[in-house]
Amino acid sequence: MARRRVDVPDLVARARGGEPRAVARLISLVEDASPALREVMAALAPHTGRAQVVGVTGAPGVGKSTSTNALVRALRQAGRTVGVIAVDPSSPFSGGALLGDRVRMGDHADDDGVFIRSMAARGHLGGLSWSTPQAVRVLDAAGYDVVLVETVGVGQSEVEVAGLADSTMVLLAPGMGDGIQAAKAGILEVGDVYVVNKADRDGAAQVARDLRSMLALADRREGAWNPPILSTTAQSGDGVPAVVDALAEHRAWSQKTGELQRRRERRARAEVEAIAVAALRARWTQVGERDELDDLAAAVAVGESDPYAAADLLLAGIDDR
Amino acid sequence: MARRRVDVPDLVARARGGEPRAVARLISLVEDASPALREVMAALAPHTGRAQVVGVTGAPGVGKSTSTNALVRALRQAGRTVGVIAVDPSSPFSGGALLGDRVRMGDHADDDGVFIRSMAARGHLGGLSWSTPQAVRVLDAAGYDVVLVETVGVGQSEVEVAGLADSTMVLLAPGMGDGIQAAKAGILEVGDVYVVNKADRDGAAQVARDLRSMLALADRREGAWNPPILSTTAQSGDGVPAVVDALAEHRAWSQKTGELQRRRERRARAEVEAIAVAALRARWTQVGERDELDDLAAAVAVGESDPYAAADLLLAGIDDR
Repeated sequence: MARRRVDVPDLVARARGGEPRAVARLISLVEDASPALREVMAALAPHTGRAQVVGVTGAPGVGKSTSTNALVRALRQAGRTVGVIAVDPSSPFSGGALLGDRVRMGDHADDDGVFIRSMAARGHLGGLSWSTPQAVRVLDAAGYDVVLVETVGVGQSEVEVAGLADSTMVLLAPGMGDGIQAAKAGILEVGDVYVVNKADRDGAAQVARDLRSMLALADRREGAWNPPILSTTAQSGDGVPAVVDALAEHRAWSQKTGELQRRRERRARAEVEAIAVAALRARWTQVGERDELDDLAAAVAVGESDPYAAADLLLAGIDDR
Repeated sequence: MARRRVDVPDLVARARGGEPRAVARLISLVEDASPALREVMAALAPHTGRAQVVGVTGAPGVGKSTSTNALVRALRQAGRTVGVIAVDPSSPFSGGALLGDRVRMGDHADDDGVFIRSMAARGHLGGLSWSTPQAVRVLDAAGYDVVLVETVGVGQSEVEVAGLADSTMVLLAPGMGDGIQAAKAGILEVGDVYVVNKADRDGAAQVARDLRSMLALADRREGAWNPPILSTTAQSGDGVPAVVDALAEHRAWSQKTGELQRRRERRARAEVEAIAVAALRARWTQVGERDELDDLAAAVAVGESDPYAAADLLLAGIDDR
C-alpha cells in the first residue's frame, strides 16, 4: 500500500476548528515519529502557548484516574475545555493504552470540549515518552484551555512531569505506606498543588499533617509559591472544585511573577537539547561503513582506552566533518 | 589553602596494592569530578575488566542491605574479595551515605578483603549517579573479585543497574503489594538471578510461584540464560551460598557465550556517549557571551520557532566551529 501523503496544513486547520479526529491524527503522527513530524511541529508552533499544562502525578493506588476524571468534570463545569494525555506504564504488556481511552472517554464521550488520549510510557517503568511534550503541543494548538498530563508517580516521572507542566498537582492518599515513604524525597520539590485524595478514609488527615510539616521544613525563597494542601474524594467529586480554583490561582501567580515563562523556557530548552542529542546519536552510528561508537566502546570494554579519551575521539570526528 | 597536586600513578599503584585509603581517595576524585579525573580514568583502564560486576536491586523493604551484607559474607567464605557500592537515595536528606558506610562496615571492618562505599543518588529518586560506573572501574582496577552495586529498585534504576552490571540480581519479598505490582513490568527483563528474600515469611512461596509464571510467559530466544529463582533468609544467611553459586554460573555462562563481552561493550558505549553529550552540553552553554541554547529555547517557548528547527540551528552552530 502506498503511503498516503499527509496534508499537514489541512490537519492543523481542522484540529484548530475543534475536530477530534484531526487532533487524534496529529498525535498519532507525533507518536509514530512520522516523516511529517517536523512539518507538524513547525505548523503548530505559532498556535502554542495558550493552554495551561497541568501535570497530575502520584503513586499507584492514590486514585489518579478517578481524580483526573473528576477534575475534567469540574473544569467543564467551570466552562473550560480539557485535553488529557494519560501516560500508561502498563500499556506495553496489557494493551492498557487503548482500553483506557475507551473506558475513560465513557464519561465524556458526548462532550466535544474534552479530548482524552493514552500514550505508552517510555521503557516499562512509567517514564514519559519522548513524544509526550509534542502531544501536549498538539492539544495546546488545538485550543484546549487546560491540558492534563497524568503520569504514574514511580521513580523519576514526578520530576519529569514537573519539567513538562506549567502547574504540577501531586496526589496522595492514606494507607499507601511504603509508597509515600519512597516518594517523599521527590514530591516535596515538584508539587504546586497537593491533593490528599480518599479524604473519607482513616488516616487522610494524618497524611495532610505529615505533608504540611514536611513542606514547612523545605527551603523556600522569599516570594515563592506556597503550595496549598487540599482534600478530595474524587469518587464523589467532593473538594474537586477547590482544586480547580487552586490551579487557576497558581496559573495567575506564575504568569504575574514570570515563573510561567521561566518554566516554559526551561521546558523548551530540554526539548531542543533532547532533539539535538538524538540527532547526534544518529550521526555517531551512521558514519561511513562502520559504527564509530561501537569501535570506541569495544576499545574501552577491553581496557585499551578509557571513556574520556574515547569521547574526545567521538567529538573530534564530529568537528572534522 | 592551595590545592594539593594529586599523584595519580602513586594512588593507582597503592590501590592496586590493596590499600583501602587509596581506593577511597580515587573514588572521591571520581565522585567530585576532580580535575585529575581524566588522568585517573586513563591510569585505571589497563587494569579493568577482571571483576564480576553484580547489580543488586529491589523495591524498598525487600531487605537489600541485609542481603548485600549476607552476600558479602558468603563471597568471603568462598574466598573472593568484594567491593560494594551502595547507591543511597535517601542521602541528600538524611546524610545516609556516610552513616551507612560506618554502620555497614561494622560487620566487615577488620576484613581487608571487603571495601564498602555509599554514593549519593542522582536527583532524589534512586537513580544511579553519573559517577557510579567510574567508581566501579576503581574497584575493578583495585583487584576486587566481585563488585556489588546496590540500588533501590524504584523507577528506572533497575534498568540502569542492569546496564551497568555483568550480572543482575533482583530481590523480592512477600508482603510488598503495590511495590511488586509496579515493578513487575521492569524486573522481568533485567534479572539474571531472582532471589525471594524473607523466605521464612507467609507468602514467600507464592511470590516465587507468581514470578515463575511471569517469567515463563516472557519471550526468550533459543540458548538464552534461564534465570534461576532462589529463596533466602538474608537475616540468618539461609540460602545465600546458593546465590553465590548462581552468580558464578551466570558469569561462566556469559563468558562462554560472549554475552559478557556484549554487555561490557554496551556499557562502555553508554558511558562514552554520556561523556560526549555532557561535553557538548557544556559547549552549547558556553558559546561567546550569550547562552545560545537559552536564546533558542526562548524562541520556542513563545512559539516563534519549533523544537526541531531550533535543534537544527544548535547543531549547525557546532558544525561551523
